[in-house]
This record gives sequence, C-alpha cells and structure tokens, in this order.
Amino acid sequence: VKAHPAHPGTSELVGRAVQAAVSQMELPEGVFSLLFDGGHDVGRALVSNPHIHAVGFTGSRSGGRALVKLAAERPVPIPIHAEMSSINPVLMFKAALRNRHRDIADRFVAALTLGAGQFCTNPGLVLAMEGPELDAFITATAEEVERAPASVMLTESIFRSYCSGVERLGQHPQVERVFGKRSSQGLSGLPSVFSTTAEAFLSDVALQEEVFGASALVVRCESNAALRSCVDVLEGQLTISMHMDAEDHAFASTLLPSLEEKAGRLLVNGFGTGVEVSPAMVHGGPYPATSDGRSTSVGTMAIDRFLRPICYQDFPGELLPEGLG
Amino acid sequence: VKAHPAHPGTSELVGRAVQAAVSQMELPEGVFSLLFDGGHDVGRALVSNPHIHAVGFTGSRSGGRALVKLAAERPVPIPIHAEMSSINPVLMFKAALRNRHRDIADRFVAALTLGAGQFCTNPGLVLAMEGPELDAFITATAEEVERAPASVMLTESIFRSYCSGVERLGQHPQVERVFGKRSSQGLSGLPSVFSTTAEAFLSDVALQEEVFGASALVVRCESNAALRSCVDVLEGQLTISMHMDAEDHAFASTLLPSLEEKAGRLLVNGFGTGVEVSPAMVHGGPYPATSDGRSTSVGTMAIDRFLRPICYQDFPGELLPEGLG
Repeated sequence: VKAHPAHPGTSELVGRAVQAAVSQMELPEGVFSLLFDGGHDVGRALVSNPHIHAVGFTGSRSGGRALVKLAAERPVPIPIHAEMSSINPVLMFKAALRNRHRDIADRFVAALTLGAGQFCTNPGLVLAMEGPELDAFITATAEEVERAPASVMLTESIFRSYCSGVERLGQHPQVERVFGKRSSQGLSGLPSVFSTTAEAFLSDVALQEEVFGASALVVRCESNAALRSCVDVLEGQLTISMHMDAEDHAFASTLLPSLEEKAGRLLVNGFGTGVEVSPAMVHGGPYPATSDGRSTSVGTMAIDRFLRPICYQDFPGELLPEGLG
Repeated sequence: VKAHPAHPGTSELVGRAVQAAVSQMELPEGVFSLLFDGGHDVGRALVSNPHIHAVGFTGSRSGGRALVKLAAERPVPIPIHAEMSSINPVLMFKAALRNRHRDIADRFVAALTLGAGQFCTNPGLVLAMEGPELDAFITATAEEVERAPASVMLTESIFRSYCSGVERLGQHPQVERVFGKRSSQGLSGLPSVFSTTAEAFLSDVALQEEVFGASALVVRCESNAALRSCVDVLEGQLTISMHMDAEDHAFASTLLPSLEEKAGRLLVNGFGTGVEVSPAMVHGGPYPATSDGRSTSVGTMAIDRFLRPICYQDFPGELLPEGLG
C-alpha cells in the first residue's frame, strides 16, 4: 500500500493495525507493507515494477488515467483498478416527492454533508420532474442545508478545488443557487445546492463534472422524456439511487435498462453513502466511475481483481495445490 | 463477429449454423451477426463504436496490441480480450524420458503436426535435461518428424511467415537443425525441429518468438538450475505441459510456483492441443499469451469477459430482474 501524502499519521495508524492483524492471523509478514512518499514517485515506481501484477487505486480521474497509461506502456501491461469519479445521481419520482418530500430532503442533506461530502458515493446530482412536489423538496432541502454545519475538509487542496467547483457552478448562466451564501471559515467546506433545467444539463457536459465535497445540482425536468434523456447522457457511476412509491414503479421500470448500463449499484429509497462489506456489494461501475467496470473495490468479489484462473489438468494428487488434491 | 478475410466461405458456413441455432433456441435475431471486410476497417470501426462494451479477439500479438491501444484511446475505454501468442512450453523430466521417450516422442510429434501446427496451443518449445534420455527422445522425434506428412497451411501469408520463422531459426548460430531438410511443395508447411543450449536460450529472447506452424525448439539444459532459469525467463503462455514419472515429482513441485505465474493451463503427461469446453478449462494466460490473464476464451468462465456485476439494493420485488425477484 502506498499512503497518500496528505495524511501520513493516519496511514501509519491504519498500517500498524493491519500489521498487528497480519501477525495475529499468522500470515507471512511480507503480505502487507506500507510505503510513504511526498508525491507520485513511489506510486509510479510501484506501477512500473515488473514484480507488480495488478494495482488498485482510489483518487481523481486524472490520477487514475495516468496510472492506466503507465500500466499499458509496460513491456508486460497489467490491470489497473482505478476508482475515479462519480456524481451518484439520485432520481426522485413524482409520487415519492408528493408523499414524503420533507423526509427525503432530510436524508438527502444528511448524505450530502456526511464527512463534508468527501465520499465517493456522495449524491452530487438530483434528477426530478419539475412541479410543486419538487419545489417543496427544494425548499425543504434549502432549509436543511442552511442548518447543516460546515466541516473541515481533508486537505487544503481538496478545499480549494471544492471552492472553485462551487464558484464555477454559481457563475454558470443557467444554474441557480438554491440557498443563501454564507461566509467560509478556515478549510470548512460549506454545503451548496444548485438547480438547473434539463435543457441546460443536456447541452453542457461540464455540468456532470464531479465537485468533490458537499455540492449538489438539482435538474428540473419538464417531462418524463426529458428525465429519460438526462439518464441517457449520464457517464458511468458508482451508484444511482431512485426515490419512488408504488405509483412510480411503472415509469421507473422503463428506465432500468439504461440505469443498469450506467452504474455498479442501484438503490431504491436510499443513498449510496453507506457501503456494506458483503457478497452482494458492488463498489465499482462503468468508466469513468472506475477504469474497469467488471470489478468492485468493496465486498467479497473485490479479491477477483487480484486473481487469475489456473487449470490443473491430469495432475497427480500430490502436486495439486492444497484444497484441490 | 467479424470474419477473418482469409476464409469468408468457412465463416459464412459457421455463421449460418450459429444463425440456425439462434432461431431454434428462439433467441432474439440480433444476438448474433457476422460482418465481413477485406482488411482492418470493419474491425477498427467496431472497436471504436460507443455501443460496443467489450471485445474478444484471436490473432497475432501486433494485431492484439493494436486493438488494445485503440480501445484505450476511446473516450470511454473498454476491455479487449486478445488472445495473441504462445509457444506452449513442454518440460520433459529425466525419469519420464528414460522410461518412455519413444511414446512421448510419438505424442509430441502428433501434437506438433496437428493441423500443420496451426493451433494456438501448439507445442513450440521443449525444455529438458541433456543426457542419453534426451538424445534418445530427439532421435525418436527426428524419425517421427521425417515421416510426418506436410499439410497445406491456412493462407499464403501464414505459410510465408512460417517459412521465414523456420529459416531464421535454421540460420541462428547456436541453433542446430534436428532432422534433414526436405523440399517444400505449394503451401505445405513441413514440420521442423531444432535444438539449442540453455545458455543460448537464456541469452537471446528472440528464441522465444512464436513460429506459427509445426516448428519446435528443444532446449538442452545441463542442470536442474539451468532448466529452472529457462522457466523463469518464459513469457506468459496459454499452456505449459510437464512429462514426468513418480521420481520426477520432487523436482517438478519446486518449479510449480514459477509455472503458475507463467500459464493459464498446466498439464501433466499431456499436450494442450485438445481444448475441452468445461467449467475447469482455462484457455488464457498472462501477457503476451493474452492481453488479460484474468479470463479464458474457452469454457464456461468465458462469459465473464462480457459481464459486469450490478448490485440491486432494497429493490421492490416487481422491479428486480427475472431470477432475483
């Protein structure tokens, strides 16, 4: 494991905990090592080293793409499992908003502001039909966001790119700020919610760019067809959530074939911020959510990223690996 | 499926058989289509098309690398499963050669000359300890090869590159021709067997280059250590076979950790030319045997190349895909 230079102390604490577990489980000591550097040198050296056969990475899209390129240029290319960017769209259907807009707004803002929004599963985009139900949801959301505390972000550079992302959205001619501006303190990333039209969203792909932190864009769709068009242009995502009541099922089911092509994890009436380690978990998704949508980085299937099948044909029992003999 | 331009008639026959099966199984007609072209244009267009999400390919290393590059440069990169080149090393251990060198030679030459050697699992390299056992095997092999009929090769270009590969080996200063030269007729690829030393093999990586057709190189190793060194420098392979008797097990077992890193399929006392479609089959292997050693192109696991996991969280039963509800 190569530690991120932003938090060497935290990495060391985690590293020592893993080391203790390795020794407690009587695994070979070399099964885990933790390396530090101040930039990209150690990471680059690891990805280029002929003894490395596969890489898992979490970070930015540019970082992930750079590693994929480096791995492809090796004399022996290797798979890179890079988890990069995702805005985790949330679809809110009419009946659900009419019946429980305040409850959905409460849970949406809680998911949006969790850990200053620095979760890869943070809900950064809302697609919903315009109308009084959506207006009520936006009003409730604005109230919750105003009340939400600002949290200190992980690093100054993350804070700065959050601020510039929010500024970019705020200055977009077709984007409206949903709640009053507050002054920023230190490295605290104030939560931000914006709204725009389906037409604007469809005509400017930059509105899909991830703003890492507690920022979300609500797209007001004038029709089911407009909402469907917005789904169709989505890039690959880690998660897509749908908030629906029984009346919404018929329309939701017509979107599923497209949604299944867009994300690794589809949720109903929930948010993706809680990621359980289980056999069914998929924390992955089509490009650019990850560099390889056939895998997951959380859950029991995650080990598949680092395995290769081998066929042992007509082996005498004593030469078979343990468990096959 | 994009048909190879070398055999449009055969492709059409196979295509019509698949089409008949699709209709008999009442699958949607679009599930299979067969496209033709005279070169690379249709293949390139398919790999670049945004509706294509994964590609399987069998062919040369340069062809595979070109497709991998094309796929990586797409706005949304996709996985390419390219099966490229493999020389399918055959390790022959001392006791096995002593006890049954003639039987092994018979089966080796049968595997080598099957289909004019145009199998991706064709045994192109033999690694064995030098000594009277190996000399007896080589003599028996030369006799068999002399008797083996020449077969017409698939295309003129395959025949030409087979001839130039054989010529290159024949002119190599440290490579010896194992049997007398015969004249070539039409497009018939005459089987060829060469021998060299471990030292020569270790010092010239070009001796690992695949000669597609019925050509094999026998490497005489002066010690177990030399044989181990030859195994350690092998590139990734589809198959590696070992011919061994009980006395050979101890040494063979020490090579296994290295062999497991080199091939997708390991065989004892057999040759890889027969590829059974079964759950245990791995027809794949580390680069450059394939572009992605985590998969197989034959056997039930082959479908994994074209699947992505999706997690359905808290879905109402009626919205779950068939089989999950």
